[in-house]
Amino acid sequence: MRMVDLIQKKRDGGELTTKEINFIIKGYTDGSIPDYQMSAFAMAVVFRDMTPRERKDLTMAMVNSGETIDLSPISGVKIDKHSTGGVGDTTTLVLAPLIASLDIPMAKMSGRGLGHTGGTIDKLESIKGFHVEITREKFIELVNNNKVAVIGQTGNITPADKKLYALRDVTGTVESIPLIASSIMSKKIAAGADAIVLDVKTGSGAFMKTEEDAYRLAHAMVSIGNSVGRKTIGVISDMSQPLGFAIGNAIEVKEAIDTLKGEGPEDLTELVLTLGSHMVCLAGKADSLEDARKKLKEVIKNGKALEKFKKFLANQGGDSSIVDNPAKLPQAAYHIDVPSKEDGFVSEIVADEIGTAAMLLGAGRSTKEDKIDLAVGIMLRKKVGDKVKKGEALLTLYSNKSGVDDIIKKVYENIKISDYAEVPKLIHRIVTE
Amino acid sequence: MRMVDLIQKKRDGGELTTKEINFIIKGYTDGSIPDYQMSAFAMAVVFRDMTPRERKDLTMAMVNSGETIDLSPISGVKIDKHSTGGVGDTTTLVLAPLIASLDIPMAKMSGRGLGHTGGTIDKLESIKGFHVEITREKFIELVNNNKVAVIGQTGNITPADKKLYALRDVTGTVESIPLIASSIMSKKIAAGADAIVLDVKTGSGAFMKTEEDAYRLAHAMVSIGNSVGRKTIGVISDMSQPLGFAIGNAIEVKEAIDTLKGEGPEDLTELVLTLGSHMVCLAGKADSLEDARKKLKEVIKNGKALEKFKKFLANQGGDSSIVDNPAKLPQAAYHIDVPSKEDGFVSEIVADEIGTAAMLLGAGRSTKEDKIDLAVGIMLRKKVGDKVKKGEALLTLYSNKSGVDDIIKKVYENIKISDYAEVPKLIHRIVTE
Repeated sequence: MRMVDLIQKKRDGGELTTKEINFIIKGYTDGSIPDYQMSAFAMAVVFRDMTPRERKDLTMAMVNSGETIDLSPISGVKIDKHSTGGVGDTTTLVLAPLIASLDIPMAKMSGRGLGHTGGTIDKLESIKGFHVEITREKFIELVNNNKVAVIGQTGNITPADKKLYALRDVTGTVESIPLIASSIMSKKIAAGADAIVLDVKTGSGAFMKTEEDAYRLAHAMVSIGNSVGRKTIGVISDMSQPLGFAIGNAIEVKEAIDTLKGEGPEDLTELVLTLGSHMVCLAGKADSLEDARKKLKEVIKNGKALEKFKKFLANQGGDSSIVDNPAKLPQAAYHIDVPSKEDGFVSEIVADEIGTAAMLLGAGRSTKEDKIDLAVGIMLRKKVGDKVKKGEALLTLYSNKSGVDDIIKKVYENIKISDYAEVPKLIHRIVTE
Repeated sequence: MRMVDLIQKKRDGGELTTKEINFIIKGYTDGSIPDYQMSAFAMAVVFRDMTPRERKDLTMAMVNSGETIDLSPISGVKIDKHSTGGVGDTTTLVLAPLIASLDIPMAKMSGRGLGHTGGTIDKLESIKGFHVEITREKFIELVNNNKVAVIGQTGNITPADKKLYALRDVTGTVESIPLIASSIMSKKIAAGADAIVLDVKTGSGAFMKTEEDAYRLAHAMVSIGNSVGRKTIGVISDMSQPLGFAIGNAIEVKEAIDTLKGEGPEDLTELVLTLGSHMVCLAGKADSLEDARKKLKEVIKNGKALEKFKKFLANQGGDSSIVDNPAKLPQAAYHIDVPSKEDGFVSEIVADEIGTAAMLLGAGRSTKEDKIDLAVGIMLRKKVGDKVKKGEALLTLYSNKSGVDDIIKKVYENIKISDYAEVPKLIHRIVTE
C-alpha cells in the first residue's frame, strides 16, 4: 500500500477501506508517512468529505493510535460532556457537581487550551489549593466515593489526533466536518466515556457560524458515537452572544456557584438543565427528560449540588470556603463600567469580539506560553433583548490595568443598541442520529 | 503574509495576487515554507485551478527562482520545441538538424529522465563519442557556427519547479493543468527561447488521455507563453499508438536518420513537417505554413538536413559515419519477431503498454539509478489500419536476452486485430491562443 495512491483515491472521490484508513493513521503516527503527504490528504478530505463508515474508521484508528483510559473500575454509566467552545461557557463547572449529586459518575478529563478564557482546569485553579495533578488510581477512587473528579490530560491519548490537529492548524485544513468530528470523538472515546452529550455551539462566538454547519458537525459526531456503541446526543445551542454574564476565570467560578444555588443567569441555567437532562437520561437515572429536569432542579433547590461541589473542591485540595465566601477568589484591581451611549434595546453582543476583549484584559491565552490572569474578565450587565438607558452600564471590565481605552473601543464596536430587539433562541435543535 | 492564509484563500476559491504567488515560491525555494504547507496548497490548486493571471505569475515566479540562460549572443530567433512525452517519439532528433539547415538557431537543452526509452541525450549517446558535456561558451559558439547544438541541463535552472515537481509526485498533486503548464513553461522560458512550439500528445500513450484534456493543457501553456512575450503554438498530436516504428534508443537514431533522408515512417514525417512548419514561421523564415513545409521538404530532398546532422554529431565528438553506416550503432543480440495469430487489420496498439514492453527489454529507466541498454527496443512492423496475415510479424523485439515470454505475452495483450480498422488522425488540433 502506498500513501500517494490513497491520496489520489480520496482526491478522485473514492471511499477508503478500513484497512487503508488504518494504514494512513498508523503510518502517520509512527512517522513513516510524512507531514507533506498527510496535509495533501487532509486537503483532499476538505474537498471530498468522508462517508459515515470512513469517519467511524478514522475515529477508531485515532483512538487506537495511543493509550485508552479504562473507566471500568468506576461503577455506573460514565457520561461525558463536550462543548465545541464558546465565550463565557461555564457549563462544565456547573454540570460536573450537579450530575454527580444524582449519583452519576463524572470522571472528567480536562484541558487548558487556547482561547478567550482559560479551560476548565484554569478556571478551577482560581480556587486556592485546587489541583488536578492526581494519579489515575486516586482519580478513580475519588469518582467512586464522591462521583466527581477532574484530572488533567495524562498519558499518550490519541497521539495521531494531536499530530494531525497541529498539522491541520498550519495547512488550512481545519474546516472539515469529518476531520473535526473524528478529532473530538476520538478523544472522548479514548477517555473511556460510555455515553456522550455534545454541546455544539452556533453563532458569531462559535466555530460553526451557521445553524446548518453546526447541525452537520453535530450529526457527524452523533453518528460516529452511536456507530461505535457510545450513545451520543448533540445539543445545538446559541453562541451569538456570550453565555451567562461572566467571561473570565474566577468570575466564571463565581457564576457557576450562583447557578448551583439556583441564582445563575437564565440562559446558562437553561442550557445546564437541557444538557443535564440528557445526561441523566443517558445514565438511566430518569424515565424522561421532564423527570430528569425535575430531579436536577431538586438537587439545586435542596443544596445537594452545592454540597457536592464543595466536597469536590476539598477532595482535590481546593479551599471550599470560597463557595460561601466568593470574595476569597482572585479579585481584579479595577472594575470599569462601560455605559450605554443611548436609550434602546441591546440587539447584538458579538460574542467572539467581546471574548477577544476579555482575552486582551488577560483572561485567556493567544499562545501556549501566555500566562492567564485569573482575576480579570468581563461581566455583562445587559444581554441581547434587554432594555438599556443612556448611561446605564452595558458591562463591567474586571481589570488589573487602568489603561483599557482600546478595549472599551472594541466593546462599543461590538454591542449594538436598537429600537427593538428579540431574545435569541437558546436551544436550536437536539440531534440524536 | 502567512502561508496558511494563502492556502485558505486558494482553498476557498480566491485569486492570489502576484505578490502572494511570489511569496509562496520564494518561501518554498528558500525553505521558509515547508513541504507540508506546499503540498496542501498544491492540493487546493488541484481542486480550485488558477486564473490565467495566476498561472502566468506562478510560471514567472518559478523562472525567477533560479538562473536563466541568456541566448542573446546567438543571432536569430531562438525557437524551442517541447513534447509532453509519448512512446517512440523521435521528433527532436529529426527537427533539430532539419530546422538548423534552414539557418534557424537550435540551441537545445535536453535531459535524460525516466520513461519507456531514454531522453534525447540518451538516444544521442548511442552514437560513439557523442557527448553533451560542453561549456556554455562552446555551446553558443557551436550554435552560431552550425545553428544546432545540444547541451545537458546545466546550472540552477528553476529550482522551485524541481522541488515542487518532486513533491507533487508523492502527494497526488501531479494532475493539475496550472501546475503542469507552469512547470513546463517555466523551464522553457528560463532556457531562453524566444518562441516555443509545443507537441501536446493525446491518447493511451500520453499523459493527457483525452483530446479535451490535451487541449486544456495546450491552451494553458500557449496562454502563459504569449502572456510573457514568448510566441507559443501548441500542436495536439496523436499518441494512441506509438509514433513511427522504432521504440528504443539506437533504433530511434536510425529512424531519425531515415526520416532526414526522406525515408522515414509516414506519421513521424508528417508530425515533423507540421511542427517544423510552425517553427520556421515563428522564426520568420517563411511567409506561410505551406511555404515553410516546402522549404523543409527541400532540405530533406537535397541532403542539406542530413549533412547538418552529420556536422552536428561531429561537432560534439560523435562518429558521424553512423549516418551512412547505421550498422555501427549498438546492435541487439536477438531479433525476435512476434507474429500475428490471425488474419485481419491492426485496430489497436496500446501505446503505453507497448512502451512498457520496450522498457522491460531495457530501453528505458523506471528509476533514476537504472542503466539503459541503448541497443534494445521494439520495432513495429505494422501500424493501426494495416492489413496483416496470420504468421506475419506484428513487431520485432530487439533484445539482449532470450527469455522474453512475458514481454511477448504483454505484446499480444496490447495489439488488437479486427475485421476493420481505420488509420487514426495524427494532428488533432493547432492551438494558437
